[in-house]
Amino acid sequence: MNTSLAYVRSTTTIFCAVFLLICAAKTSGQTPQSSPIRDVPYRQLVSLNHDWSYLEKEIADVQRVNESSEEWARIDLPHTWNLWDVVDPQPGYRRSAGWYRKELFVPVLKNRLRLILSFEGVNITSEVFVNSSRAGGHVGGYVGFDMDITPLIRQGTSNTLLVRVSNAYDPDVIPSQKSDFCIYGGITRDVWLNIVPEVFLGRLQILTPVVSASHADVQAHFVISNPTGKPESFEAEVTVLAPGGREAGRQTLAVATRGDTVTVTAPLVPIVNPLLWSPNQPSLYTARVRLKRGRTVVDEVEERFGCRWFEFKAHGPFFLNGKRLLLRGTHRHEDFAGYGNAMPDSLHRSDIRMIKEMGANFVRLAHYPQDPEVYRACDELGVLVWDELPWCRGGMGGERWKNNARRLLAEQIGRYYNHPSIIIRSLGNEFNWLPDFPGGDNLDSLRLFLRDLNSIAHRLDPGRLTATRKFTEGADLVDLVSPSLWPGWYSGYYRGFEKALTDSRNRFPYFFHAEYGGDSHVGRHNEYPVTGDGMSEGWEEQITPQKIKNVSLSSDWSENYIVDLFDWYLYVSEQLDWFSGNAQWAFKDFPTPLRPENPIPYMNQKGLVDRSGKPKDAYYVFKSYWTTAPLFCYIESHTWTDREGPKDVRREVNVYSNCAEVELWLNGVSLGRKQRTLTSFPACGLSWQVSFAEGRNSLRAKGPGAAEDTMSLNYSFKGNDVADHLELSARPQETGAILITALAVDKNGNRALDYNKRVYFTTTGGGSEYAGTPSHSPIIEMANGRASWEIFPPAGHPVVVEVRNQDFKGAYVTISGRGSAR
Amino acid sequence: MNTSLAYVRSTTTIFCAVFLLICAAKTSGQTPQSSPIRDVPYRQLVSLNHDWSYLEKEIADVQRVNESSEEWARIDLPHTWNLWDVVDPQPGYRRSAGWYRKELFVPVLKNRLRLILSFEGVNITSEVFVNSSRAGGHVGGYVGFDMDITPLIRQGTSNTLLVRVSNAYDPDVIPSQKSDFCIYGGITRDVWLNIVPEVFLGRLQILTPVVSASHADVQAHFVISNPTGKPESFEAEVTVLAPGGREAGRQTLAVATRGDTVTVTAPLVPIVNPLLWSPNQPSLYTARVRLKRGRTVVDEVEERFGCRWFEFKAHGPFFLNGKRLLLRGTHRHEDFAGYGNAMPDSLHRSDIRMIKEMGANFVRLAHYPQDPEVYRACDELGVLVWDELPWCRGGMGGERWKNNARRLLAEQIGRYYNHPSIIIRSLGNEFNWLPDFPGGDNLDSLRLFLRDLNSIAHRLDPGRLTATRKFTEGADLVDLVSPSLWPGWYSGYYRGFEKALTDSRNRFPYFFHAEYGGDSHVGRHNEYPVTGDGMSEGWEEQITPQKIKNVSLSSDWSENYIVDLFDWYLYVSEQLDWFSGNAQWAFKDFPTPLRPENPIPYMNQKGLVDRSGKPKDAYYVFKSYWTTAPLFCYIESHTWTDREGPKDVRREVNVYSNCAEVELWLNGVSLGRKQRTLTSFPACGLSWQVSFAEGRNSLRAKGPGAAEDTMSLNYSFKGNDVADHLELSARPQETGAILITALAVDKNGNRALDYNKRVYFTTTGGGSEYAGTPSHSPIIEMANGRASWEIFPPAGHPVVVEVRNQDFKGAYVTISGRGSAR
Repeated sequence: MNTSLAYVRSTTTIFCAVFLLICAAKTSGQTPQSSPIRDVPYRQLVSLNHDWSYLEKEIADVQRVNESSEEWARIDLPHTWNLWDVVDPQPGYRRSAGWYRKELFVPVLKNRLRLILSFEGVNITSEVFVNSSRAGGHVGGYVGFDMDITPLIRQGTSNTLLVRVSNAYDPDVIPSQKSDFCIYGGITRDVWLNIVPEVFLGRLQILTPVVSASHADVQAHFVISNPTGKPESFEAEVTVLAPGGREAGRQTLAVATRGDTVTVTAPLVPIVNPLLWSPNQPSLYTARVRLKRGRTVVDEVEERFGCRWFEFKAHGPFFLNGKRLLLRGTHRHEDFAGYGNAMPDSLHRSDIRMIKEMGANFVRLAHYPQDPEVYRACDELGVLVWDELPWCRGGMGGERWKNNARRLLAEQIGRYYNHPSIIIRSLGNEFNWLPDFPGGDNLDSLRLFLRDLNSIAHRLDPGRLTATRKFTEGADLVDLVSPSLWPGWYSGYYRGFEKALTDSRNRFPYFFHAEYGGDSHVGRHNEYPVTGDGMSEGWEEQITPQKIKNVSLSSDWSENYIVDLFDWYLYVSEQLDWFSGNAQWAFKDFPTPLRPENPIPYMNQKGLVDRSGKPKDAYYVFKSYWTTAPLFCYIESHTWTDREGPKDVRREVNVYSNCAEVELWLNGVSLGRKQRTLTSFPACGLSWQVSFAEGRNSLRAKGPGAAEDTMSLNYSFKGNDVADHLELSARPQETGAILITALAVDKNGNRALDYNKRVYFTTTGGGSEYAGTPSHSPIIEMANGRASWEIFPPAGHPVVVEVRNQDFKGAYVTISGRGSAR
Repeated sequence: MNTSLAYVRSTTTIFCAVFLLICAAKTSGQTPQSSPIRDVPYRQLVSLNHDWSYLEKEIADVQRVNESSEEWARIDLPHTWNLWDVVDPQPGYRRSAGWYRKELFVPVLKNRLRLILSFEGVNITSEVFVNSSRAGGHVGGYVGFDMDITPLIRQGTSNTLLVRVSNAYDPDVIPSQKSDFCIYGGITRDVWLNIVPEVFLGRLQILTPVVSASHADVQAHFVISNPTGKPESFEAEVTVLAPGGREAGRQTLAVATRGDTVTVTAPLVPIVNPLLWSPNQPSLYTARVRLKRGRTVVDEVEERFGCRWFEFKAHGPFFLNGKRLLLRGTHRHEDFAGYGNAMPDSLHRSDIRMIKEMGANFVRLAHYPQDPEVYRACDELGVLVWDELPWCRGGMGGERWKNNARRLLAEQIGRYYNHPSIIIRSLGNEFNWLPDFPGGDNLDSLRLFLRDLNSIAHRLDPGRLTATRKFTEGADLVDLVSPSLWPGWYSGYYRGFEKALTDSRNRFPYFFHAEYGGDSHVGRHNEYPVTGDGMSEGWEEQITPQKIKNVSLSSDWSENYIVDLFDWYLYVSEQLDWFSGNAQWAFKDFPTPLRPENPIPYMNQKGLVDRSGKPKDAYYVFKSYWTTAPLFCYIESHTWTDREGPKDVRREVNVYSNCAEVELWLNGVSLGRKQRTLTSFPACGLSWQVSFAEGRNSLRAKGPGAAEDTMSLNYSFKGNDVADHLELSARPQETGAILITALAVDKNGNRALDYNKRVYFTTTGGGSEYAGTPSHSPIIEMANGRASWEIFPPAGHPVVVEVRNQDFKGAYVTISGRGSAR
């Protein structure tokens, strides 16, 4: 493969962008004294996240915005105007435009500096104005863009940046509004000011055309921008630094510029016995390019990269650096309770860290390119990445649509080029579903356009494999395909999993299994979870799942059903020697406009953790299969605190653990030790049949080297009668919040464990926003007769909190100003 | 019965209020030139409804309100802050406080006038300030109150009226928040300024202690207020004017005042052969009292009254003016789409007119005293009234609660004393349910307090019968009882109606049947409506209806089921010679916080008309039984435009009509004439078995003297396949609105008549508020695969309207700025 050729072509189509991270300075007040811009002859990277104003108005004309007397809100970036409305009970969320404004003082500069505004992502469409003149714009969210604003800047004074952002419906821009997630609006990622010298280095791309255990060739591609118009000669020095900082190789070359932009492919830098990048040892090299005029360094840029190679064997497993690696993956949406997708870098990183700590070595970034911090975290923590073009649902459109899709693919590749974590370049997901244009699901047209995208991807990004999910009609057109396999949820039953995999193995030489799982509602448990008997055969998700009998519609979305499903999937996949691996859907609960009637309305509840990152039971199943340290035990389930059943019926108690053996005690009496073995199901054999005592029971589990896990539960031999009414209680939290808990109880005051209907909380003051977590949704289904809501009552002011539903009315609790219930 | 004695006692306990209606002048600007107050020596009644400011803040202190820099909204009265939030999808509605402000210019007055502020109703608790000094306050909504603000008024300048209103939870004030309706907040009725001379006539009450066809005695009770402190003698002249204005009798008496308030019982004014008041001939007399100082008229007041007598026979029917009258009733809540309970008088009146036009002669004003215009309309149009103290649910409380309840009963009687329409004085509804206080449903306490209230009512209002609904445990304590009989809805089946009535007849010597019916969702029809087979026996409503199998939970809330039920009820009750009558629940759909998951969320859909007064099918059933003119035919149902069934199966088509006979044509061919007879069911025999043709069918019905009724419908022999997707269309309305209609269709494009699930409409602009009608609720259940939503798209601005639900996603329609769909 002629990668050099591929690269040269790429520079002609990729938006000319700088992608540099050297230093970041927090901006503050915009006075001459405190301008973030220094008058120095070298590059600076300045954060522009702070001190913005925001106007929530759909105004088209920048002049009208300037003249508007509206009150702007003071905000910091990242920001979305859809923070709460994506999960409030009102259907839909704001799909419109808004304006952002920032004052930027630029001092008088003796150095000839260029000011380049760099957005990491603005959803979806943006127009940028500097001092009321248009500086540029961008169509498409989720991918960054830059613009040189130097000509519009006035020195020695304040400059006004205005950005119009719109997330209004535009079927010509992917993803389709029919996607099963929210299309947030706003400047949802960081904004930077790149201040570069007059002559500067642009994009630096690193290729490793040859990598083996003993040798790697590193090749730097970069752009020199010299807008002076004067021909000049420079020396470019390419240095490769090994993970510890030691110099691993260097090449120097002379570059003649004619006073414009020149693209340079530097000579190969060989590395002997490279430290290979892998999930277990994510070794990162640095490539540094210095541009020199004689002895003076004119500009310098650095990029990190890794040395690794990989392969999917036909009908067989995945290999990384020559060794089989079972891909253990999950999915990530860019979303967090209380932030929407406007998350700070720390939260982006903690998401990836938590995924890594669960034992995953793979993540599919669904269904769009994500924040740069995500890729940095995956590089550094060792998580392989399936990156995806946001061609999600909606079929395909006309030329405008196609040009947008092609350009966004090129931009995405350009900006995320050097990350060793990325191995798969997905071209889309379910894109033949629910066309936005007449004939938009025509198979021939879809195949033709997929071939087009595939060719762009291979040309611009030769080191990665292309893929799609669900569109198996085009499986022959991409390197890797993920069919739709949801046995046990959208069709079939989970014990059909291996059959589904084998079918796909036979049909698709190169396949990876993305997306499996199901919804679970925290705290809901069932002594007799569904088994899948009587469900429709098969395993495919349907566009309209209600047409067939399936678990997603027939079950109660209990935590223990989904634990069983995941346990089975992992039990199977961990033992298949030919299997490349799979990715569970999805790591975290996330909002979607398509599911208004879920237990938490508008929340896709397929997460292993809730929307605030709190683990559900299923999280521990994965952790038990995928991690070896630290050692832990988790008794299923800490939220299953009330159970019932006849005196003589034993109950299964599973312990999810990575210990070699675990002992379980009931009420202080050992129930014996069990060996953990991958060939046993459930819980790798850490499963006990337990005869609970009536009333209070304690459970304790312990494995060698692990901390013990304990819990207590109430057990009733009689079981509850039908739900008779709701009872409310209030408990102050450490945060100052009050947790209101509603219990459905029978006429004897026993909790009605079979009562799972929706309840509606209201308060006369201090209600918390709809954050989509189990304790921050005032409309929520009960979980075994319980539901909670956290509120922040105003100080010194009693409030009344009510709970009701169609069946029960009138339960309320009064909370005094100090937060105590009376 | 010594009515004089009863009245004398009453004046000692009734809040001293004036109740006068002579003239009304609209206020406008508050300049000296345009002050509504004239400096004349006689009384003026001035509307204070206009030009108020409203501040939606829960502020306790009037000083803080004065100092507040908050922006007040410009409003007119009547006003509620719960206009929309009672039916929006957010649970609950604003239960808090707000402030109202009005500037009132008072000129320099040469005459010694008194300014009395008169509120027809403020919900629930109010504090009134004039120029920052407290003028008074009132606890309890739904009943008017007055306050003399003369001492606080500054002449020759503007005066600031401030009213703090709160509808916050207060379990000490009836009705309980557990009631099945909304407790609106605001100055929800008219406000007046009564300007009276220094010495003035207060409340005028008219008694007719003796009424027969040949004779009536009229007795005026009134108050003379003379705050001068000087003893003085007056002449009082009581004149009775017959309906045409002719003088029917007169009495004159001398009254000595000692310079304070004196209560006068005037001598009887006899009337020979009085024109009796009845629903068929609502003849209204006027009693006029003139207070004279020598020849000078000091003050004059008038009240209307009627001459009628009535009786419930033990175990038998109701008699009015000596003749049996079957009470044909319904219920009215004070509520209207787009107004809440803050309705103008014209809407109050049109409600009563529509009830009258349906043929009703009785209305229960549920569950609280209503706007004065309602009683005026009932007096004038001829509708008998069950008036009710708002003791609705919540049990009973302590002394504070009891004092409030007693006082509110006295106030209600005092303000609505003279209306001949009122015959029943209900003391409460379902008040033993869902106690707000521990032990609040203790039977002994409830009986004791009911006895107390009953005694107050009899003492203050001797000419009316006391009653309660549902609390049959106290049936012996009141004059009349209404047990809970809901066969065919909350339990049992509708054919058990007569059995239920007979049981009550045997148990309760004096009983009236208030509340029956069920919910219906406009446009929903079922070829095979439920019959009630397999339902629980009995007829009582349960506090928690989900505990038994009943139609309310098992049926689809189709219009034709409820048509069948009402048809049966009327078929039975119109033929029972011993039956006093009943009142259907309820005339109009109304919002309730207790029913979030109804087909129209938060709407009680038991109305015969929707929340905007548009008739449902059931309305015509009543009209067909209860009216004789104008003659009409109504084919059931104009909203049943798509039907299906096998080729050989005939379908029942009923025509609801008051014609003696009706002929029905199908596709131009007569299906024969049928005689209307009360002893036939359904539709009094106007029922045909019809073999529809496949495809388009036309129906035409005509009775002698009535306009023909026509409709067309599609009929399918095959029926639809399962719903496959939703389709949206848009149609401009005459109002400028766009009606968006969503159809669930099968894969062949046929409307899926069996699809009744919820859908969710959204728009990117111009969405209409949640008004709770079938076309103004963006969250609504489909009716036979159809749902509509009306929006007002902004001009020149395309908007996207979407519809989706759990099953189907992605349907949308784009509406251009001119309103046309593309």
